[in-house]
Amino acid sequence: MMNAQDKIGYDAWLRYASIENGELREEYRACCSVIVITEQTKLLHTAARELAEAVGAMTGHKPEVTSVRDRQVPSVMIGIKGKGDTDGLGDEGYTLQTLEGGQEEAECIAIIGVSDRGALYGAFHLIRLMQMGEPINKLQVKESPANGLRIINQWDNMDGSIERGYAGKSIFYDSGGFVKDFTRIRDYARLLASTGINAISINNVNVHREETKLITAEYERTLSKVADVFGAYGIKLFLSINFASPIAIGGLQTADPLDPEVRKWWAERAEDLYRAIPDFGGFLVKADSEFRPGPFTYGRDHADGANLLAEALAPHGGLVIWRCFVYNCLQDWRDRSTDRAKAAYDHFTPLDGRFADNVILQIKNGPMDFQVREPVSPLFGGLSHTNQVLELQITQEYTGQQKHVCYLVPQWKEVLDFDTFAAGKGSTVDKIASGALYNRPYGGLAAVSNIGDDACWTGHPLAQANLYGYGRLAWNSALSAEQITTEWIRLSLGRDPVTEDVVSSILLRSWGIYESYTSPLGVGWMVNPNHHYGPNVDGYEYSKWGTYHFADHQGIGVDRTIGTGTGYAGQYHTQPSEIYNSLERCPDELLLFFHHVPYTHVLQSGKTVIQHIYDTHFDGVDAAAGLLAAWQTLRGKIDNAYFELVASRLTEQSEHAKEWRDVINTYFYRKSGIDDRQGRLIY
Amino acid sequence: MMNAQDKIGYDAWLRYASIENGELREEYRACCSVIVITEQTKLLHTAARELAEAVGAMTGHKPEVTSVRDRQVPSVMIGIKGKGDTDGLGDEGYTLQTLEGGQEEAECIAIIGVSDRGALYGAFHLIRLMQMGEPINKLQVKESPANGLRIINQWDNMDGSIERGYAGKSIFYDSGGFVKDFTRIRDYARLLASTGINAISINNVNVHREETKLITAEYERTLSKVADVFGAYGIKLFLSINFASPIAIGGLQTADPLDPEVRKWWAERAEDLYRAIPDFGGFLVKADSEFRPGPFTYGRDHADGANLLAEALAPHGGLVIWRCFVYNCLQDWRDRSTDRAKAAYDHFTPLDGRFADNVILQIKNGPMDFQVREPVSPLFGGLSHTNQVLELQITQEYTGQQKHVCYLVPQWKEVLDFDTFAAGKGSTVDKIASGALYNRPYGGLAAVSNIGDDACWTGHPLAQANLYGYGRLAWNSALSAEQITTEWIRLSLGRDPVTEDVVSSILLRSWGIYESYTSPLGVGWMVNPNHHYGPNVDGYEYSKWGTYHFADHQGIGVDRTIGTGTGYAGQYHTQPSEIYNSLERCPDELLLFFHHVPYTHVLQSGKTVIQHIYDTHFDGVDAAAGLLAAWQTLRGKIDNAYFELVASRLTEQSEHAKEWRDVINTYFYRKSGIDDRQGRLIY
Repeated sequence: MMNAQDKIGYDAWLRYASIENGELREEYRACCSVIVITEQTKLLHTAARELAEAVGAMTGHKPEVTSVRDRQVPSVMIGIKGKGDTDGLGDEGYTLQTLEGGQEEAECIAIIGVSDRGALYGAFHLIRLMQMGEPINKLQVKESPANGLRIINQWDNMDGSIERGYAGKSIFYDSGGFVKDFTRIRDYARLLASTGINAISINNVNVHREETKLITAEYERTLSKVADVFGAYGIKLFLSINFASPIAIGGLQTADPLDPEVRKWWAERAEDLYRAIPDFGGFLVKADSEFRPGPFTYGRDHADGANLLAEALAPHGGLVIWRCFVYNCLQDWRDRSTDRAKAAYDHFTPLDGRFADNVILQIKNGPMDFQVREPVSPLFGGLSHTNQVLELQITQEYTGQQKHVCYLVPQWKEVLDFDTFAAGKGSTVDKIASGALYNRPYGGLAAVSNIGDDACWTGHPLAQANLYGYGRLAWNSALSAEQITTEWIRLSLGRDPVTEDVVSSILLRSWGIYESYTSPLGVGWMVNPNHHYGPNVDGYEYSKWGTYHFADHQGIGVDRTIGTGTGYAGQYHTQPSEIYNSLERCPDELLLFFHHVPYTHVLQSGKTVIQHIYDTHFDGVDAAAGLLAAWQTLRGKIDNAYFELVASRLTEQSEHAKEWRDVINTYFYRKSGIDDRQGRLIY
Repeated sequence: MMNAQDKIGYDAWLRYASIENGELREEYRACCSVIVITEQTKLLHTAARELAEAVGAMTGHKPEVTSVRDRQVPSVMIGIKGKGDTDGLGDEGYTLQTLEGGQEEAECIAIIGVSDRGALYGAFHLIRLMQMGEPINKLQVKESPANGLRIINQWDNMDGSIERGYAGKSIFYDSGGFVKDFTRIRDYARLLASTGINAISINNVNVHREETKLITAEYERTLSKVADVFGAYGIKLFLSINFASPIAIGGLQTADPLDPEVRKWWAERAEDLYRAIPDFGGFLVKADSEFRPGPFTYGRDHADGANLLAEALAPHGGLVIWRCFVYNCLQDWRDRSTDRAKAAYDHFTPLDGRFADNVILQIKNGPMDFQVREPVSPLFGGLSHTNQVLELQITQEYTGQQKHVCYLVPQWKEVLDFDTFAAGKGSTVDKIASGALYNRPYGGLAAVSNIGDDACWTGHPLAQANLYGYGRLAWNSALSAEQITTEWIRLSLGRDPVTEDVVSSILLRSWGIYESYTSPLGVGWMVNPNHHYGPNVDGYEYSKWGTYHFADHQGIGVDRTIGTGTGYAGQYHTQPSEIYNSLERCPDELLLFFHHVPYTHVLQSGKTVIQHIYDTHFDGVDAAAGLLAAWQTLRGKIDNAYFELVASRLTEQSEHAKEWRDVINTYFYRKSGIDDRQGRLIY
């Protein structure tokens, strides 16, 4: 059990502070004095219970939940409208309306979902409005998600570790099995559902020995219980699977996707799983990637591999989510003709149209691997007959590992808003991912979780904003970063305007600041190998991972142009391709991703590359110190333990930023021999 | 149990091949038809048994062992002469003489030890002569060891791992406890004793939780059995101890060396240990080094710490071996005034004369950490009133990890022959280490073992030569590298002259070749962090370990001169100090250890630094390929499995040398911008 001190930030954005404004509190209390559910479904019960608890905590009066409406008492009615009347809301939409009362009838707030899941989202919407102190007496809300699939990927291992986890151990597993107490899993489900998440894969995409068995009878009973916990919040359970399972646990001699025995084996596994978990979501697959087994072993391609599983799941309505993170991870650093950035596009565009209807390709936002700055993957725009989801990384593997604050919503917004020009202007990534552009049956967003058993879930309390923001963007990618930020602050830290200003500024500037003192101008990868924390300019330079900057005494960058480089720039449609391919037009922040230039090359900013490196690194350290200073002004305004926890992380960030600055600046000063124009100390 | 195939190289230099020359075989058989021991002691029995087995295997006739000599039968007599008549042989010396027969008396070989341990060494000497096909009918040998202490340090952990071990798991421990079967430990004792080793510490100097308990009653019984195994071969058992033991396992609040309770506690532990193991050797201690606890915690110094343990052991004749590997391992790389190379000298010379008589300081050969090339530690020559042993590293941590062949005897010879000028010309390290120069009661050599449970003990069969060579040098540091090499080859691979030529050439050139394709000119440390395998020029450059090369676009090296550098060169006596301090006189191979120079600096060899780097790296790769080619000529001449094992390692070395070449050359080409004069391919 956690004690109060340990619970810092545990409630996250479902923190129901008592409403201080008496008038407002009374209004909320009055409007919500009774909660009526119109049907007896699990999700309507969840919705009513969540709303009752929230209202109770915020107003001091917990409303009664009933199934019979007394028309003379103001109430919140939670019901299901059914698909027939949905005005294009899809099956997860909802309306939220204040129905004015009359002579015989009290005012009523109606939360009507197209499905009971929609109603649950409506209830969380109403809760959010009250948390933010919004009026609820004239509600006219109509909402439906932009994306059908809004999934979270856990990279949890059954030994309790989390790959790229920076917030403690797994809340799912311990010592090789599932945890005994599911309380924390349920609380996680609440948090996710409140932002609109509707699916979760609960084991690492690198599926190890024990995890391979998750699809067997051994784990049926436990998985069914876990599925129930998530199911009560409208979240479908997915499992990452091992493509070699037929051999590893099936006793077969092959995992060849075209082998009849293999197909039969997977079909049986699917049947077993759906018998135990009727609303099971499907499989997430990392195959032929970083030493994971896959169809290549049998001379088959990714379509063969994905369709094998799709065939097994189709009778039950299940999905195959097939990751596109496929590249040669045994590259020779001497070989400049092979370009890892090109790999996903080269592997998957030839297969466009060959995937079954219940297959979805999961594509990382960039062509490399969640660097602080990358261009958008050209695979978005390279597929028009294939379901796709955009994969983001909430866990801050390359962006400060939740020791540094790095609010990623602005980065994700840039990705979602990127215009691929695939079907003319306006062919933005969000429209491709959602399926809207090509009218695909499935689409959405996926993201790697940043939570663990740490008290505040995310190690750094401010990193909660990334998890929240991901859910909100997955629901509605048109929301601005500012809107999401404001919401998160009000929900998590209250409605003090000074706090809001300060925290908002910290969050919205943080990505840029992190970028400024780490690897410059889009080149990426200047981190320590393996754990990826801290500066190491040559850390991935002479490696097998396809991750190079080619810095010499004259210049730096990767020539990915069409004429003289690897040709990667040609994987984009004409408009972005021409920009990236042009030394003059390529945006500064991606210059070294696309071009090899001398240190004396003058950027669009007017600075030389070398001076840009020096300046951003000195400025970045100052800015990091500024984040801490800004936070310090909030002492007394927020819970002290929370305050101190954030302050200690910001202090660490501020110190570590200096290490980044000095290593990067020293490296380039020693290599280029070019002095800093401002004569600052470089070692 | 190992099968025949698994046993490749298991017998090492105690491989008793049948003598092919019939005449010689008959001579040996005749001379050794009976073995007579003159007293009943454990070691004389061991000596007789070893000799009987050897003669049996080599001649086909295993001699009888008896205690009654029949003067008419040719025999080998093994006996003890006693200290009175030893002609300055010390208590471990022996004579080995052929006593001609007479009318009534047959010829006899007399192995007479000053002690029974001496007799055992004499028996192994006789065995060695027969293995090498030497005549034994006119023996007039007198031998005694140059060094009193000839100790092996195992860095084995009780979980079965070995720190810096490259030959499998521990032969001592498994899964947190001792192994059940001591056969392999006994076979190790035989190998060690046959080279003259007389002491062994059996646990890692980094003493972890379970290992801390080795000095408690819990392990008494087992330790006593292990001590018996080694004792039968004249090898004393030492334990590495945790300086914080009084707290960790003693229930005390402090480990302060001046605290009476602490002193009492250690005295009791010593009493207990000697009750269980009457010939226990003593303690090996790594304190206040790389996060290990030590006297600094209590404001005490190393003399206080060592004397605490010395006081506890003195009543029982035990020794404290105190390591001098003490430096700041949390250094700021920006700080150029602190020099790790200076640390041992700075810490220990002020304490000269303050250590108890049964304390021995164990000093690494160089001031850094077993790099392929370092100067000799100036601490040799800095202490005249303190017992010292020279610490060498047989396990190839920085010298190819037993994947590369790197025969270290030539390196050790350079160290032993180095003249410190501490007491005038001729004050060589071997005389300081042995105690001869300052007439110290204790002295000798220590070395970190390179063995594990690998079939051939050392991973790379040729690495056995390092273990053998260490033992032989510890016994007699005047032996030349060539002599030792010839011995090892004849004992291990037989007496084919072609084999001897080829293997001798491989071994004797190997250190130089390894040096040529790795870090240049004595600068060291261009390895991957942590595991230390493979090239990484900046791997330790921006680290906390005090290990830098300071390469920029103009030059490289560490200025350790007296005038402009860290002053390290001033820690030597005048003669070597002046040489190292001089840019002109400093030997090329240590230039970058002592001086920061431009890449265009011309070496004594006539080449520039940068051209030297290019040339040695290209040549080194060719030479590594040459080692493989040379070995290939031996196919059919030696056991095929042994041949293939070595061939596969040499192939790996040859490939890996290219990786070294290309990373190092590319790094310096990119940084300096200076072309290779020969225009070879640099990436």
